[in-house]
Amino acid sequence: MNLKPYRVKPGTRLQLDRWDPGETGTYKKNERVKEKAKAETARLIDRISALQERLYANGDRALLIVLQGMDTSGKDSTIKHVMSGVNPQGCKVVSFKTPSEKELNHDFLWRIHQEVPAKGQIGIFNRSHYEDVLITRVHGMISDRVAKRRFGQIKEFEELLTENGTAIVKFFLYISKDEQKQRLLERVRDPEKRWKFNEGDLEERKLWDDYLRVFEAVISKTSTESAPWYIVPANRKWFRNLLVARAVVEALEAMNLGCPKPSADIDWDRLVIE
Amino acid sequence: MNLKPYRVKPGTRLQLDRWDPGETGTYKKNERVKEKAKAETARLIDRISALQERLYANGDRALLIVLQGMDTSGKDSTIKHVMSGVNPQGCKVVSFKTPSEKELNHDFLWRIHQEVPAKGQIGIFNRSHYEDVLITRVHGMISDRVAKRRFGQIKEFEELLTENGTAIVKFFLYISKDEQKQRLLERVRDPEKRWKFNEGDLEERKLWDDYLRVFEAVISKTSTESAPWYIVPANRKWFRNLLVARAVVEALEAMNLGCPKPSADIDWDRLVIE
Repeated sequence: MNLKPYRVKPGTRLQLDRWDPGETGTYKKNERVKEKAKAETARLIDRISALQERLYANGDRALLIVLQGMDTSGKDSTIKHVMSGVNPQGCKVVSFKTPSEKELNHDFLWRIHQEVPAKGQIGIFNRSHYEDVLITRVHGMISDRVAKRRFGQIKEFEELLTENGTAIVKFFLYISKDEQKQRLLERVRDPEKRWKFNEGDLEERKLWDDYLRVFEAVISKTSTESAPWYIVPANRKWFRNLLVARAVVEALEAMNLGCPKPSADIDWDRLVIE
Repeated sequence: MNLKPYRVKPGTRLQLDRWDPGETGTYKKNERVKEKAKAETARLIDRISALQERLYANGDRALLIVLQGMDTSGKDSTIKHVMSGVNPQGCKVVSFKTPSEKELNHDFLWRIHQEVPAKGQIGIFNRSHYEDVLITRVHGMISDRVAKRRFGQIKEFEELLTENGTAIVKFFLYISKDEQKQRLLERVRDPEKRWKFNEGDLEERKLWDDYLRVFEAVISKTSTESAPWYIVPANRKWFRNLLVARAVVEALEAMNLGCPKPSADIDWDRLVIE
């Protein structure tokens, strides 16, 4: 699977109407292919697990995964399907909710910085600092001038992280408006799923097109060589999982994680244990 | 598997020389039984995963798992084998290392309290506040009077948590001194494992018996009905994993986690999604 077409090239202008949230790349949409893709994803997950162990053992670098997308786009589900199997000791998930009063009394990156992954860890942001240029902008809570300034601040913040050993990959899970409708209906119709339904989601849904325009602007401005955005066609869950798993493996492989070196201060051959 | 014999009854005096770290309960030590036990553990892990989803969905309670044991007793390995498979979004592992200067400028429970699991979460402490009555006491850093006071403070702290919806289970992974020697030798002999070896462990090893006496005192004083200690014979990794997995399942089952109720404020039958 070639990920290049899904990576947003720095400096280009993303146009989401040229993308199909229902596409599945070179994979045909039939049951046999779907099963094959699932098996491929399972192999990639094993690989993530092995690479994460190396990351942890080395303890000198980290990986930050950012997940963004409309409501019901599958952020939680992606974490569950792609990251279950990873040793939780080396993996931290942070869900960013509406900021508290205390958090609002600081700059928007203050609470984010506290939650970045420690060395040796994979950190997953379920929503992130990008909310501060997404929801805030769609609802006119910040001006275009402030948004523009924040793009610069975000890029510099991410550069600080990458220059200090934290690799970053960012995923926009892209579903269609109709797919969202189906997923919301499923929650409403199934009494066992109703607890997941949030009436506020219907209000946000009315702003669908505004969100798409703001996502385009944000992603165009903040996809960089060292912290790229991936557009993940996410109507088909199996394709979404496969693409994310593949990109996480590539990010970890690019770190060239070797076996950590034993201490040079110990005379290993003469060591006695009583 | 009956867990009762492994639970330290509140108010009793634990005597570790009556325990065999190599025992495997009613399970015979042969390959066939070992494989059967592993399959049983796998089923228990699936059950933990399902119950954790309920815990997360309900979001009104939490589970705290405390792991203690000598060096090489398998704390990391238990987390890896029993908790991989759990959705990392609902599971947080915290490893407590030597306290920082800032942490030492607060009471010993200050840093611990900040890391207890949020509602809906499973929290795992890899070492814990118990270090503050273990290593500190073996090395004479605190007096018996202070230790005694801390036992009371720990019990009250844990009661605060349990009364506010956080169930607690505590595991002492018990290996023999000879088993530790084998595990240390393995790390020394295998160049790929040498990075795990810590020379300081040899110094602590010399204090083996002191540690056992202090563990006995601490566990005897702090095993309660609502936050019990389990003694886990841990020479055999497969038996250790099975016992821990079984106890975690029982703790989650005792919470009676139902399906969360949908909002009563929504007229579900008339809801329209456009």
